[in-house]
Amino acid sequence: MESKNIFAAVLAGGVGTRMGNVDKPKQFLNIAAKPIIIHTIEKFVINSRFEAIIVLTPKQWVNNTKDLVKKYIPAAKNVFVIEGGASRSDTIMNAIEYIENNYRLDEETVIVTHDSVRPFVSHRIIEENIDATLEYGACDTVIPATDTIIRSDDNTFINDVPPRKVMYQGQTPQSFRAKKLKEHYNSLSEDEKEQLTDACKIFVLKGEKVALVDGEISNMKVTYPYDLKVAEALLGGNE
Amino acid sequence: MESKNIFAAVLAGGVGTRMGNVDKPKQFLNIAAKPIIIHTIEKFVINSRFEAIIVLTPKQWVNNTKDLVKKYIPAAKNVFVIEGGASRSDTIMNAIEYIENNYRLDEETVIVTHDSVRPFVSHRIIEENIDATLEYGACDTVIPATDTIIRSDDNTFINDVPPRKVMYQGQTPQSFRAKKLKEHYNSLSEDEKEQLTDACKIFVLKGEKVALVDGEISNMKVTYPYDLKVAEALLGGNE
Repeated sequence: MESKNIFAAVLAGGVGTRMGNVDKPKQFLNIAAKPIIIHTIEKFVINSRFEAIIVLTPKQWVNNTKDLVKKYIPAAKNVFVIEGGASRSDTIMNAIEYIENNYRLDEETVIVTHDSVRPFVSHRIIEENIDATLEYGACDTVIPATDTIIRSDDNTFINDVPPRKVMYQGQTPQSFRAKKLKEHYNSLSEDEKEQLTDACKIFVLKGEKVALVDGEISNMKVTYPYDLKVAEALLGGNE
Repeated sequence: MESKNIFAAVLAGGVGTRMGNVDKPKQFLNIAAKPIIIHTIEKFVINSRFEAIIVLTPKQWVNNTKDLVKKYIPAAKNVFVIEGGASRSDTIMNAIEYIENNYRLDEETVIVTHDSVRPFVSHRIIEENIDATLEYGACDTVIPATDTIIRSDDNTFINDVPPRKVMYQGQTPQSFRAKKLKEHYNSLSEDEKEQLTDACKIFVLKGEKVALVDGEISNMKVTYPYDLKVAEALLGGNE
């Protein structure tokens, strides 16, 4: 069998703090009678280019997530649920370690990292992520900024209003040559690691090219309570 | 009568190009059985601090908008519909000219400019806009960036991923001492005027302070077809 050497990492490591009074992390809330995280995993399961789909959750949710995968996607044999890390970067590093230990990690290995709370990612976006990473080594999924972007260093007065036409809002997937991502991450100082809120920045800090892939408005993050209403409306309209 | 010297400008000058196949600018589409622009105007009508509310629309929509105001807000005697300009800045300047010709324009005059397609602006946001402008001379309504912000100068590769904690997404209202706004705008070069996509930038370019007012996620711009579904859901949930 020819090995595909392309992996998905569905990132559900964080415990949401923006969803208000709910007893579950938001990725486990239902839309259209299925947990958000299942909708998301399905998008990768149906793409045959992936060798494995690694799902990373907080430790206390690993077993529950395994049960959900068995219940909703019983036919999927290449979905593996493991524990995420303390930060987003740590979680991605756990996924790469899993690849290294269970498959192989070489110059060709591609990892497509995706937020578990973006269930509406399209087949086209995932395909273009893989292709752009094969061509350039890394890519980010973005949409042109719909709002004016403002910079304020003191949270009180505006410092800058950068020209809107060069500003984008990052979505996911963010995809990388996995070995290079690991090496670059390990070469960062502790300070640099702590300031990271975005995996693509690891490549940017190292002067590497990160290509843009066109995202979609509908590839939204389900972060706030009313996003659930939108999500329901979107699924209601499409199914 | 003590004159209030505070004016609202509801900006409906643009003809939307992002709403897909609709025959009307998006501000005239209905949510909860009323045009979006009427929901928006009502938010200012119920605030007694405004001397007048100036609504600016494309020329061919002025009469229609007047009819809508008569139909839906017959009791409001301080709403005036006039023609907007070619650009957002021109539209704001038309509002200031209207104030100058029909009321007065002095150092104290405040103008609160607001997108006609943000019908969910709250009383708190409007109040804080007025107060911040009285104190600092100008303010902008913003929310912390929910997405990572990316800068790409060539629309192909990432140039920068600025630290998210200093990045904000601009909403409206944007509010100003109106006379100063006019003077600063008139002092810009034609090049500077053409590059303007944001009124606050006029103050920023001139080195003036622009204070931040906390926006709200729900103070969204109804720009895309699915926003209408969200808007319906939000109103459905609140009414």
